[in-house]
Amino acid sequence: MTDTIARPAGLDAPFVKTLISVWRAEDAYGVWEKLPDSKVIGEFIVTKAQRREIPIIGDPDPDVMNRVEKFYVAVGLDIERVTGRMASPMMKMSHEGFGRVILTVGRLVVISKSLRDVHRFGFESFEKLAEAGEKLVDEAKKWIDAYPAVADI
Amino acid sequence: MTDTIARPAGLDAPFVKTLISVWRAEDAYGVWEKLPDSKVIGEFIVTKAQRREIPIIGDPDPDVMNRVEKFYVAVGLDIERVTGRMASPMMKMSHEGFGRVILTVGRLVVISKSLRDVHRFGFESFEKLAEAGEKLVDEAKKWIDAYPAVADI
Repeated sequence: MTDTIARPAGLDAPFVKTLISVWRAEDAYGVWEKLPDSKVIGEFIVTKAQRREIPIIGDPDPDVMNRVEKFYVAVGLDIERVTGRMASPMMKMSHEGFGRVILTVGRLVVISKSLRDVHRFGFESFEKLAEAGEKLVDEAKKWIDAYPAVADI
Repeated sequence: MTDTIARPAGLDAPFVKTLISVWRAEDAYGVWEKLPDSKVIGEFIVTKAQRREIPIIGDPDPDVMNRVEKFYVAVGLDIERVTGRMASPMMKMSHEGFGRVILTVGRLVVISKSLRDVHRFGFESFEKLAEAGEKLVDEAKKWIDAYPAVADI
């Protein structure tokens, strides 16, 4: 279902659409069917004021971890959409919200990022979310263009 | 401390030595100082008869996980010893002893393995352990030799 009144900007960006479909794919019983897209991925939006209020003590809660994971799953899917090559994400959290995520295509590492303060994972707006995802997909595409032979293995 | 009587074959293989040092590095209080090498990494040896007796139901216990992790840490260190390039391992276990481990050097994936039946992780003998480690290091070296530019990034 789409938002009928004043659909927030950014929700129709290709990356955000992918993320929404990743999220809706888990809705096996149709519980969210009538929920607008902006609600389905609404938790990805964390304003500056909200960020400040989230403590970064202890391990991040499973909901945040799930969002981080889904975000990179969507990045992987969009890499495939853009480059035609499958990307596998791998995420490893150590403690207290620190970790690392990499995405590989063939034998090539197309994304490698350290994660920190995962507790506060989120974006100012859907546009910022789209930008962040598209930036990563672009980066991955550049690596694949530079070393296609390694990506093809 | 070394085994004084009948030091088991395989314990002096370079890979096994690395694994022993990885293991001993965690012994901050010197509890295992007087323990012979064969005891320190003795848990890596699982005979066929023992394997059969280990159930592969549920998630593997943390001790096994720790051994798998240390094994790949040692592989990473030996890749560095042999090729002069640092390798970072990343392991992800899903459920019931299934998972994936990759080692990257620069932007190159030098090892990529699916793990399964991790509950039964082990080797017939120290020689077999050495062989398994060296085979992985060789494989990594071949990838680096094939794509040095990607490994150097």
